[in-house]
Amino acid sequence: MASAAPEVEKKEEAVEQEQVVNPWEVSAGKGGIDYDKLVDQFGCQRLDAALIDRIARLTGRTPHRFLRRGLFFAHRDLNEILDLYEKGEKFYLYTGRGPSSEALHLGHLVPFMFTKYLQDAFKVPLVIQLTDDEKFFWKNLTVEETKRLARENAKDIIACGFDFERTFIFTDFNFVGGAFYENMAKVARCVTYNKAVGIFGFAPEDHIGKISFPPVQAVPSFPSSFPHLFSGNDQLRCLIPCAIDQDPYFRMTRDVAPRIGYQKPSLIESRFFPALQGENTKMSASDPNSAIYVTDSTKEIKAKVNKYAFSGGQDSIELHRKLGANLEVDVPIKYLNFFLEDDDELKHIKKEYKEGRMLTGEVKQRLVMVLSEMVARHQRARAQVTEEMVDAFMAVRPLPNMFG
Amino acid sequence: MASAAPEVEKKEEAVEQEQVVNPWEVSAGKGGIDYDKLVDQFGCQRLDAALIDRIARLTGRTPHRFLRRGLFFAHRDLNEILDLYEKGEKFYLYTGRGPSSEALHLGHLVPFMFTKYLQDAFKVPLVIQLTDDEKFFWKNLTVEETKRLARENAKDIIACGFDFERTFIFTDFNFVGGAFYENMAKVARCVTYNKAVGIFGFAPEDHIGKISFPPVQAVPSFPSSFPHLFSGNDQLRCLIPCAIDQDPYFRMTRDVAPRIGYQKPSLIESRFFPALQGENTKMSASDPNSAIYVTDSTKEIKAKVNKYAFSGGQDSIELHRKLGANLEVDVPIKYLNFFLEDDDELKHIKKEYKEGRMLTGEVKQRLVMVLSEMVARHQRARAQVTEEMVDAFMAVRPLPNMFG
Repeated sequence: MASAAPEVEKKEEAVEQEQVVNPWEVSAGKGGIDYDKLVDQFGCQRLDAALIDRIARLTGRTPHRFLRRGLFFAHRDLNEILDLYEKGEKFYLYTGRGPSSEALHLGHLVPFMFTKYLQDAFKVPLVIQLTDDEKFFWKNLTVEETKRLARENAKDIIACGFDFERTFIFTDFNFVGGAFYENMAKVARCVTYNKAVGIFGFAPEDHIGKISFPPVQAVPSFPSSFPHLFSGNDQLRCLIPCAIDQDPYFRMTRDVAPRIGYQKPSLIESRFFPALQGENTKMSASDPNSAIYVTDSTKEIKAKVNKYAFSGGQDSIELHRKLGANLEVDVPIKYLNFFLEDDDELKHIKKEYKEGRMLTGEVKQRLVMVLSEMVARHQRARAQVTEEMVDAFMAVRPLPNMFG
Repeated sequence: MASAAPEVEKKEEAVEQEQVVNPWEVSAGKGGIDYDKLVDQFGCQRLDAALIDRIARLTGRTPHRFLRRGLFFAHRDLNEILDLYEKGEKFYLYTGRGPSSEALHLGHLVPFMFTKYLQDAFKVPLVIQLTDDEKFFWKNLTVEETKRLARENAKDIIACGFDFERTFIFTDFNFVGGAFYENMAKVARCVTYNKAVGIFGFAPEDHIGKISFPPVQAVPSFPSSFPHLFSGNDQLRCLIPCAIDQDPYFRMTRDVAPRIGYQKPSLIESRFFPALQGENTKMSASDPNSAIYVTDSTKEIKAKVNKYAFSGGQDSIELHRKLGANLEVDVPIKYLNFFLEDDDELKHIKKEYKEGRMLTGEVKQRLVMVLSEMVARHQRARAQVTEEMVDAFMAVRPLPNMFG
């Protein structure tokens, strides 16, 4: 998978403009990402309050703040997964990451935090694909480097707290083969070059590695790709939490699935996590000041937030007291929206800030505290992840208690 | 690999016409395959008498009749392999087959007979790729069926007498992965879609499985694809015996090799084995009378040869005695050219037949004897190939005596 939360941010009024969203490019133009348009264009469904209530009821838990706040906002056939679950049937989760950078930024954590919530709430197995091959195809990296990055990223993923008894992590360079490769071939035979161009926008000058890759990301959707986990359970349903830019892969997958006798995977899809600089800018590996990394110190977080986080506040205190902040473009508020757990406090901050009683500096101060705590907690967890734990999570092994 | 000896036959005077030769299509038009044109078009080299003499000298053996009679007629950098061998250095052989049919016909045996000769003469290791995935991509077969055919074909290949201590047989559905997949990715990144279209003639309506496949056939050319055999020996040279229709794969492979730090494979390439009906007809799985199969009985061989083998003899005995046979179109002579070991007898038969002293019936009688003996010998050998032997040849294992 590509970075699941990279790129750009919605503007207050979405202007109808050319927007490009695919697994390798998210560009919004002046109007910001128009998520409504994206849902219509991709043909996925909106994740409405009724569905979120149903998740709450079925799991007996408060829905994750990413659900409560519309950050996971779209889906495909999530209702079918819930129908099955209600009847006592099982499913499994599939998510992933393209390991192109050493340290993850906060946006990278979003799908994993959410997936951990889903695993805990539904008590289901999870497969995590690290697409080292994808990054080899798209970035100027060696095989060895992509494999090393995959392993480093696996440590951050493990640090998110996934249940060892329910989680299988794999890299493509290690795991492609056998039943997995057979499924790749089955998918590939159903997708013409023309169709792949239509979905992914390949050009004739693109190398054939890129054209070969989509089936690799498709087949973890099918339980038969993991005989050590799901042998004899080929119709087990799969739910994929991911950012909306990954939708093209799974549109393709869902199109192919019935033609090869498999179930379509269901999806639950998130918005993009904004760069510090706000709307229409990208979090970029080449600009460390565009994002907060999980390796940043409290001091670095404080400096970045204070210096770079785009403010919706007014230019002077006097004006701010009078007009209040524009929350729609304010990055500290957006970040708190993702990471401040307390709904009441968030509501309070938004109100005070919007009405000018709270200043940008105060909001940023609260954000620095929230992020520092979260990042420090992640760093402590990651420091405890040993090479042996990585090997253990990646071992091709049965998970006898995965549905327990 | 596709069937290594399928298709069509050269005519007396090669007319300059449109001919198409690629791994999935060999069509010659009226003039028959123009092998000279093919050599120029593909950019390979002619295998001349000096090179054959050198093989004889280096191996201390009479060159195989396929060499003596120009049936293996072209090469790429075979001289470099011989240079190395003369200096006491090693190389390995790589050949293969696309398992699309239950029973092999005689044409299918040609590359394996020749490869066995090379293995015995040079005492080198051999990898044999069974491209079940290729046949899945190109034929309307299930994965299971291509895997079953691969295993059945492996029995016929083993029956050719390959040295167990020097031979590793693998199917792609079983073996793709790990170091092999890493090399596939390295090759794929070096080949654009445009380039693949130029080499293989893919159409936009073709599925992406076809476009993904060429790297699979490319990478057995690289020793690092077989860490269990050649670990630490990444620059070991590779020689590929195959029919000339496989040249496009290895043109691509040789183009890519230096860009990823590998040696180019060398090639030694054969003409096509003719159908019973002769020039410009194909041996077709749907027409059992177009070829002799290794499963045919002596009675069947006799009936097929007598009824279907295209004769260059005259319409009446009187005319034949007067004008003699046209050897250039005579299929029994072509088959004897492949399979009658005795050069003197072959020369004698050709002379007598050409000058009308020998009749088609007599030549066919001799051919039936030669083929029956060869096929019966193959059937006896195949009957002794057990499932355990197939497993043993296919086991991913080191071959400690492979250069011994």
